[in-house]
Amino acid sequence: MTNYNFSGGPGALPESVLIQARDSIEAVPGQRMSVLGISHRSEWFESVIAEAEDNIRALLGLPAGYHVLFLQGGSSLQFSMIPMLLLRGKGLTAEYLHTGYWSGKAIPEARREGAVRVIWNGEHDAFSRLPRDEELAHSQKAAYFHYVSNETVEGLQFHRTLGRDDVPRICDMSSDFLSRPLDVGRYGLIYAHAQKNLGPAGVTVVVLHDDLLRDVPEGLPAMLDYRSHVQSRSVYNTPPVFAIYVVMLVTRWLLHEIGGVAAMEKINMAKAAELYALIDGSDGFYAGHAAAADRSLMNVVFNLPSSDLERRFLADAEAAGLYGLEGHRSLGGIRASLYNAVTPRAVEVLCDVMESFRRRHASRRKSA
Amino acid sequence: MTNYNFSGGPGALPESVLIQARDSIEAVPGQRMSVLGISHRSEWFESVIAEAEDNIRALLGLPAGYHVLFLQGGSSLQFSMIPMLLLRGKGLTAEYLHTGYWSGKAIPEARREGAVRVIWNGEHDAFSRLPRDEELAHSQKAAYFHYVSNETVEGLQFHRTLGRDDVPRICDMSSDFLSRPLDVGRYGLIYAHAQKNLGPAGVTVVVLHDDLLRDVPEGLPAMLDYRSHVQSRSVYNTPPVFAIYVVMLVTRWLLHEIGGVAAMEKINMAKAAELYALIDGSDGFYAGHAAAADRSLMNVVFNLPSSDLERRFLADAEAAGLYGLEGHRSLGGIRASLYNAVTPRAVEVLCDVMESFRRRHASRRKSA
Repeated sequence: MTNYNFSGGPGALPESVLIQARDSIEAVPGQRMSVLGISHRSEWFESVIAEAEDNIRALLGLPAGYHVLFLQGGSSLQFSMIPMLLLRGKGLTAEYLHTGYWSGKAIPEARREGAVRVIWNGEHDAFSRLPRDEELAHSQKAAYFHYVSNETVEGLQFHRTLGRDDVPRICDMSSDFLSRPLDVGRYGLIYAHAQKNLGPAGVTVVVLHDDLLRDVPEGLPAMLDYRSHVQSRSVYNTPPVFAIYVVMLVTRWLLHEIGGVAAMEKINMAKAAELYALIDGSDGFYAGHAAAADRSLMNVVFNLPSSDLERRFLADAEAAGLYGLEGHRSLGGIRASLYNAVTPRAVEVLCDVMESFRRRHASRRKSA
Repeated sequence: MTNYNFSGGPGALPESVLIQARDSIEAVPGQRMSVLGISHRSEWFESVIAEAEDNIRALLGLPAGYHVLFLQGGSSLQFSMIPMLLLRGKGLTAEYLHTGYWSGKAIPEARREGAVRVIWNGEHDAFSRLPRDEELAHSQKAAYFHYVSNETVEGLQFHRTLGRDDVPRICDMSSDFLSRPLDVGRYGLIYAHAQKNLGPAGVTVVVLHDDLLRDVPEGLPAMLDYRSHVQSRSVYNTPPVFAIYVVMLVTRWLLHEIGGVAAMEKINMAKAAELYALIDGSDGFYAGHAAAADRSLMNVVFNLPSSDLERRFLADAEAAGLYGLEGHRSLGGIRASLYNAVTPRAVEVLCDVMESFRRRHASRRKSA
C-alpha cells in the first residue's frame, strides 16, 4: 500500500528526491564519499550550495541586490535575528501582525530588542480570518513591517502582498515559500525553514536585500550577524550539509520536473480546490476553520461534528495509508497539509476516504 | 576498492550507522514514514531523542543534576550562548585559554558579553604545544574558565582536566567528546558539535549542570536561553530530526558495539600510537606539528619535506582510497583525523601508504 504524508511539518518530500537523498548516504554523485562524511569545504559541496542558491534565484526571478542564505536555528532564531538587525538601538517601532500561532511567537522575541506595535490582532476572531487592507493602519516611520504569509496551525494564508513599499517588508514564508509566484522585489527579507516545501528540518533559507545591511548594530554575535553568512556564502561555520543537499535536490525538482513556481501554484490550487469543495459540499459534516477568502492552499484545517468522530476518522485514514492528519496540538481537529510534494493523487485518496467516512457517519447521525 | 575517510570534519561515521541512516530515508524502523517527513512530535521521534540522551548519559556515567541538550548552530553559537548566560551583566571576568584556531574563535565572541582574560596564549609557539599547569594563573573569582580539549587544526589535545573545581569549568569537546572516559562531574558545561565523533553536521550536544541556570540574565532570546531547550527537552522548535537520529545510532553503536568510551579509548590510543610511531621513525621525513606530550589522539598533523611532496602524497593517498588528508586551510600540510569511526584497518592502510611513499621519496632525495 502506498503511503501519503499530510504532515504539517516536517512534511512530505518528492519521491525522486528521497531516492537521491537515500543514495547519497552511501556516496554522493560522482564521488566516493558519503554525504554525511564529506567536507563542507569540498568542491562537491561548493557546487551543491551554489546550485541551491541558483535554483532559488531562478525560481523567484530574484532581482539584483539580494542575498540567499542557508542558516541554522529555524524560523525561531529568525524571530530574534531580524529585530537584532533592524530594531536594536534604532529608536523606532516595528509593526507586526498577530494572525495566528506563529506570528504570535515572533512578537515577544521582537519586543526584547525594541518597541513593537501590533497593528492587527486576530485573537478576538479565534484566528479564523485575516485582516482586510482597510483594517491596517501602517506608519511610514516603522522600522519594518513583519507578517506571516501562511499560518500553518490555523490554515490562513494571505493571497496578496501587504504593507507599504517605503517600509522594509519582512515576511515569514516558512510554510508557503516557493509554493506560488511572488513579487519578491517588494520584500526586504523573507525567511522560510525547510521542513515544509524545501527539504528536511535543520536549515532555514533567508532571502534579504543588501540595503538592510547598511546600518548593522555594533556587537552582534558573529553567528547572529547576517553579514557573517553573506561574506562566507553560508559557510561561516560547518553548515548542515545534508539538509542543504536535499534543499538543492528539491529546488532542482521544482525548477526542472515541475517547471517552476507558476506551474506549482496551478497544481497547488487544484489540490486545495478539490479538498475545499468536498468540505463545502459536506452539509456541515466537515467544518472549515478559516474564512473562505483567507483559506490556505497549504494547510486545510477543519473539524468533524465531534472529537470522537475525529479520532475515528484519523484511525480510518491511517488504515488507508494517510498519515499526519492530526491538527496542531494547540488547536486539535484535522489538518491536511498540501505542501508542494503532496501529489494530486494523494489528495484524491484523501477525498475518497473523507467522502466514504461522511456517507457512513452522516447517515448514521441522521438515522440516530 | 574500499575508501577511508580521514576528514577533519564532517568526519567518518560507522558503516553500520550509515546503512541504518540510508534505510531510514525510505522509512524509519517500525513505521511507514521517511525520517525526512516524520513529525518531530511523533512517538517515534520522542523515543529517538530519549534514547540518544540515555545513551550519552550511560556513556559518560553522567551524575544527577545535568541536562543533555541537542541544539543547532554548531560550536560557533555556543561561543556566544555561554557568555550570554554566564558573563553578561555579572561584573566578573571569564578566563580563556588560547591554544589554537578554535579557542581563538571563541574569545572574541565572549568579549562582546563582558570581560575576558586570556590566561595563556600559545601563539608565540605557533600553537605547537599546550600549557603546563604551572603556567596557568587561575583566579578563584572568575565567572568561568573556558578551554578547548582538542584543537582540531593543530592536533593538540589535553590529556588531563584543567582549572579549579570552584570555578565553572566550560569545555569545547567538539572534536574529542565520547572518544575517551571523562570525569564529567567536574565540568559545568561541555559542548560538542556532532560532525566529528557523534553524527552528521547540523546538531550540537550540550551537557550542562542545572546550577548554571540559577541566575540567567533577563531578556535573552528564547532560542539562546538554555532554559527553553531544557524545558522542552530539545524540542523547543523543530529540531534537526535526521541529525539527531544519526547521533542516536552512533551513540548506540558506541555503547553496544564498541562497549563504551573506555573500550573506544583503547582503540583510539592504538590507532594514534601506530601513526605517531611511523612519524617518529621516519628520520624526519614526516615532521609532526605538536609537542610529544600534547599530541592529539584525534588529529595527527604533520608535514613532509616540501609542499610539492605533500601534494604528491595527497594524490597517492587518494589513488589508494584515502580521503580527507589535507591539512586545515589555515595551516596546510597533512592532517589525519582518527575519530571514533575511523577503523584500525584504515590506519594500517594509511601507514602502508606513508611508509611506501617515504621509501620512494626519501631515497630519491638522498640519491639526488
